[in-house]
Amino acid sequence: MSAVETHDAVDVIRTKRDGGAVDEDALRWMVDAYTRGYVADSQMAAFAMAVLLNGMERDEIRVLTDAMIASGERMSFDGLGKPTVDKHSTGGVGDKITLPLAPLVASFGVAVPQLSGRGLGHTGGTLDKLESIPGWRAALTNEELFAQLQGVGAVVCAAGSGLAPADKKLYALRDVTGTVEAIPLIASSIMSKKIAEGTDSLVLDVKFGSGAFMKDVDRARELARTMVALGTDSGVSTTALLTDMNTPLGLAIGNANEVRESVEVLAGGGPADVVELTVALAREMLTLAGHPDADVEDALADGRAMDSWRAMIRAQGGDPDAALPEPCESHTVTAPASGFVTRLEALPFGVAAWRLGAGRARAEDPVVHSAGIDLHVKPGDEVTAGQPLFTLVGEDAARFDRALDALEGAWELGADAPETAPLVLERITA
Amino acid sequence: MSAVETHDAVDVIRTKRDGGAVDEDALRWMVDAYTRGYVADSQMAAFAMAVLLNGMERDEIRVLTDAMIASGERMSFDGLGKPTVDKHSTGGVGDKITLPLAPLVASFGVAVPQLSGRGLGHTGGTLDKLESIPGWRAALTNEELFAQLQGVGAVVCAAGSGLAPADKKLYALRDVTGTVEAIPLIASSIMSKKIAEGTDSLVLDVKFGSGAFMKDVDRARELARTMVALGTDSGVSTTALLTDMNTPLGLAIGNANEVRESVEVLAGGGPADVVELTVALAREMLTLAGHPDADVEDALADGRAMDSWRAMIRAQGGDPDAALPEPCESHTVTAPASGFVTRLEALPFGVAAWRLGAGRARAEDPVVHSAGIDLHVKPGDEVTAGQPLFTLVGEDAARFDRALDALEGAWELGADAPETAPLVLERITA
Repeated sequence: MSAVETHDAVDVIRTKRDGGAVDEDALRWMVDAYTRGYVADSQMAAFAMAVLLNGMERDEIRVLTDAMIASGERMSFDGLGKPTVDKHSTGGVGDKITLPLAPLVASFGVAVPQLSGRGLGHTGGTLDKLESIPGWRAALTNEELFAQLQGVGAVVCAAGSGLAPADKKLYALRDVTGTVEAIPLIASSIMSKKIAEGTDSLVLDVKFGSGAFMKDVDRARELARTMVALGTDSGVSTTALLTDMNTPLGLAIGNANEVRESVEVLAGGGPADVVELTVALAREMLTLAGHPDADVEDALADGRAMDSWRAMIRAQGGDPDAALPEPCESHTVTAPASGFVTRLEALPFGVAAWRLGAGRARAEDPVVHSAGIDLHVKPGDEVTAGQPLFTLVGEDAARFDRALDALEGAWELGADAPETAPLVLERITA
Repeated sequence: MSAVETHDAVDVIRTKRDGGAVDEDALRWMVDAYTRGYVADSQMAAFAMAVLLNGMERDEIRVLTDAMIASGERMSFDGLGKPTVDKHSTGGVGDKITLPLAPLVASFGVAVPQLSGRGLGHTGGTLDKLESIPGWRAALTNEELFAQLQGVGAVVCAAGSGLAPADKKLYALRDVTGTVEAIPLIASSIMSKKIAEGTDSLVLDVKFGSGAFMKDVDRARELARTMVALGTDSGVSTTALLTDMNTPLGLAIGNANEVRESVEVLAGGGPADVVELTVALAREMLTLAGHPDADVEDALADGRAMDSWRAMIRAQGGDPDAALPEPCESHTVTAPASGFVTRLEALPFGVAAWRLGAGRARAEDPVVHSAGIDLHVKPGDEVTAGQPLFTLVGEDAARFDRALDALEGAWELGADAPETAPLVLERITA
């Protein structure tokens, strides 16, 4: 039986093209008819371009998101008996924060369902990193997910394909039609999955700068505000931190090396910036979950977060004590002169790690878990000539040249220490 | 063998999306790759929307047009031994000007190759009108076309499908993606076919107002300027008249009745507005063809234009003396009060004639040649209560109600004569 079509795609496109707001019924129809295949890719592409250039009102974004949620299944953690809180990062270089964060927050009796994705391009994927751990598996049934949230509290697993299928179709279309960068479409894409997942509350880590999806801080702020409004309008308590992604997070960029660095943080050590962001996000999450005064730093220092991590890894078949893949090839770049590290740019380091095999070019490609870059210094550090700056690691030395090409001009030494910028620039609330 | 792709569609889309100019190579590649099917409909739709919202520079429009011409065959009238001049109207209600115009201009020894289309929606098609004449056929081979231009001089025939196939594909896409109204795309669509046709010079009748494609005079002027620049840049001498299409042209709207009215003009009579526009366009065409002082009115008065018409109809199998289809049903609307006709709006009269069967809803539908509307008055005429205003004609009285619905509010009587607006508003040259 074919549906009775209640609207016309060309009318919807024209409304947005001419700068108007598409009414609720028409927008819901457009998403549903596109998912059913009645509205053609070409029509949705023209609509997406009109949205990119003319924007959407807050209410349109809410309806668009809701229509994408309605295209698939909606999960519920209602019977869990504890609050759920999720974190989403817009992605960056060396961003392994989910790994220490989820068990840290769960150690306070909160459920943290981190439904995650894999990396594509220069930003890494949380699942790829965790798959460095022998035995660990990303795929869980809904029952396993529920049971693990009730027991361990923290879960990092693959998002089921049943959540917001309209978004999957639309995202693939945006990718080939130059319409990825539309803030209403980015916001509804991210939030449709997070809302469909059924979390009570959500903290967004919206990144700006060289290694971020949003290079520009104003655009990142607009995206953060849009998503916080959207979560709030949809009944999910949502806050966002606007964080700096001009420099890689921490010292490890890759997969296995990022797990190692995460375990250092869980052991009470680790790079200052990774600790700072983990703690800041944990405070936001715990505040939304009803624990505004949680002793977050103590949980890292006294082993509670580490216990939670080990339980989480074990619950998904992983061995937290197993050796991680070690690279068999490496190449170290040293300081050509003495001075201060003034710049170490996230994007080229992300691209270089990707070229070494840490990331994938196509969704079906495997990643090389041991590949990546280990930084030995960060901006502001003083170095002497000959001192190691960073080391490329991996399985295939033939890849080093193309990685080094990407790093041309990516870092700088200078006579004076650079000005420091705050890692967490702003907190955005409803 | 697959082509080596020299560009990336997403890059081209992004350039236009971000307000830049697409360089020549990339734009030629985009059109060619789209025609080949390598660039997807969805990508071209996003590009078309970006063009609609961000525009194109003069040079981009020239390259786009040239790329569409290059997608198909290019005709040449080089061996003809006389100048060729063509006319294109952007379309309106009651616009039968091609019928008297082509033979009139040809009577001065100029070749007039009018490659025309059929009507779709409320604007009529020149071929549909001429097919009211028993025996007349629209399809000519290129050899027949060439021979008729050399002999009679005037040809109105169907454009071959080999001209600018990229435009055909793009036009069908624009129609379903809300991107018809982009001036660079309209201009390149019209001009690619006219330039590929191989005419030496071209006069454009760009209409504005209720019954025109461009309602707004400023948009019509922009379109006219764009097309004149494009013709000039492509080596075709081009001028344009900006003409009023708020009121139907002449008194006949339909097919057979428009032929009758055209014959009246060729016999030295006919409605003043049809004569005025025919003469104005003929002067433009003859000026471009090297006859700036041609005695155009004389050729209508003394039968030279009529002789040319009869020869043109005969050359394509038509009998200029045959009776035209007569309607068997009619319905006359009379003046409810005395006063002046202050408004008689083109669009609803066009829609009403279409509903009577004069036009088609789908390209494969037939038209009813006898159907249409005969006006008895025009704006500015004084009428007395009970005097006939217009008559609906056709084969099926059951269609009159829906036609009358379209005419609700389409005309007005008032106590005072309306202000008159010039039919030809401006002349636009390179």
